[in-house]
Amino acid sequence: MRKADDYRELTEKALIPALNSLGTIPQPLPEAMTYSMTAGGKRIRPVLLLATCEMAGGDIDTAMPYACALEMIHTYSLIHDDLPAMDNDDLRRGKPTNHKVFGEDMAILAGDGLLNAAAELMAVHALKTEDIRGIRAMEIILRHAGITGMIAGQVADVTSEGMEPREETVRYIQEHKTADLLEAAVEAGLALAGAEPEQIAAGHEYALHLGMLFQMTDDLLDVTSTAEVLGKTPGKDLEQKKMTWIALRGLEGTEEEARREADLSMKALEALPWDTAFLAEFVQKVLHRIK
Amino acid sequence: MRKADDYRELTEKALIPALNSLGTIPQPLPEAMTYSMTAGGKRIRPVLLLATCEMAGGDIDTAMPYACALEMIHTYSLIHDDLPAMDNDDLRRGKPTNHKVFGEDMAILAGDGLLNAAAELMAVHALKTEDIRGIRAMEIILRHAGITGMIAGQVADVTSEGMEPREETVRYIQEHKTADLLEAAVEAGLALAGAEPEQIAAGHEYALHLGMLFQMTDDLLDVTSTAEVLGKTPGKDLEQKKMTWIALRGLEGTEEEARREADLSMKALEALPWDTAFLAEFVQKVLHRIK
Repeated sequence: MRKADDYRELTEKALIPALNSLGTIPQPLPEAMTYSMTAGGKRIRPVLLLATCEMAGGDIDTAMPYACALEMIHTYSLIHDDLPAMDNDDLRRGKPTNHKVFGEDMAILAGDGLLNAAAELMAVHALKTEDIRGIRAMEIILRHAGITGMIAGQVADVTSEGMEPREETVRYIQEHKTADLLEAAVEAGLALAGAEPEQIAAGHEYALHLGMLFQMTDDLLDVTSTAEVLGKTPGKDLEQKKMTWIALRGLEGTEEEARREADLSMKALEALPWDTAFLAEFVQKVLHRIK
Repeated sequence: MRKADDYRELTEKALIPALNSLGTIPQPLPEAMTYSMTAGGKRIRPVLLLATCEMAGGDIDTAMPYACALEMIHTYSLIHDDLPAMDNDDLRRGKPTNHKVFGEDMAILAGDGLLNAAAELMAVHALKTEDIRGIRAMEIILRHAGITGMIAGQVADVTSEGMEPREETVRYIQEHKTADLLEAAVEAGLALAGAEPEQIAAGHEYALHLGMLFQMTDDLLDVTSTAEVLGKTPGKDLEQKKMTWIALRGLEGTEEEARREADLSMKALEALPWDTAFLAEFVQKVLHRIK
């Protein structure tokens, strides 16, 4: 069985060639896009997509353009999220944010470019293979990334800043801002392997709770970690009065919720007929970030 | 034969329902997206797509999601282009620009949302119909909108501001920033009707020169018109030292180039086996904006 590092390395080899496969791009756009694409993320979304696809008997070469597209979407969302008009972050993964290096105009265009490139890459691939499973994966990824998915989460995040924390709102933000792209990874991986609708539904459940867990541990690390370990400015959430689990439940209450989400995520795997060791281990790794 | 106004009205009826068909979107995002989608544009791109599709024997109901997607892409590009970090425009189509009404953060998200919604809408439709012509149209539209198309033009526009005007650069910017989405309209319309590759190539030629003509007349109007007629701040190009045909050739030289582009556009129609009266008239209407 392949490990997360194997999938990560495969993704990293494929990412920039995938971008360049689309044609000649005028500078400094490729430089700006590549800067953020190679800034050392953990590649959680493509790793999950590839691992899930392979687990369910799919082919990871066929799945690679979709894995790359998903990472491009994640990267664009970070670039736009860091802009002065949004979260106004200077540091991301230990490096200056995109607009700090390339200017705000190029950062906006690099974000737009990565989102368009992601959709284009999937369309090119779907056209080449004429495989309905590719179109299904494309629809899944764009839906989870879009105005009823990740972008909905961003909107709720922006509009709720400074408001009294409410569980319903915190849950909505994290479900969309974080869990949606993990759901996209797992569901698209299953769709590419030709999985049945009820299996995709179980994958959705797994990834939803994994996403909630991930965001809770992220919120905890934002409070307890340092800029050096974190690679970004810590304590920003509290400073910006973001609506997080910490604001709602405090440190211990959030740790408790995180363990509950981990359990729900593990439980969802029981409905899948394959060897789910990779996905189970993934949950434990995320949970143990806070231990 | 239907007229431009007929296609425009059909598009306007379909646009907001198309957006809402994607699901529940949290406020104020739908309000912000709808504001710019209904700000009274001429709908040139969807009109061209629908008219070309029908001319070539295609079905305009099938083509409508792609026409709406193209208008969403055009609208997102205007919202982002108007941002303070980009062209910093306060007025668009006679109304305050998106970020003036909804704030910069929401304008960035409304733009991202419209681009994602465009791709999502096409993917949903391609999945529903399982028709390779839809996938082909989707690839055409995303390619012309993307990092080798419209976004490439935006990048060249931003990076060339204040530089000495050069014909090669002016041509590159206008080919990509303006012509690319018109090429997308005509080529996608033809692809949806099942046209042959050499017919799509002729459509590309037609739309390329139509796009150059369109941008030249736009540049001329920017100098000669008033804010009231124009619906946006006139004289911005000169003020921002934008690289336009006017900067290169002056008013008369640009008018001459515009007539040359109109001729080339008309000539490209000769390779098409259908009644091209609509497309020919379209060229004349754009040319006569400056008369």
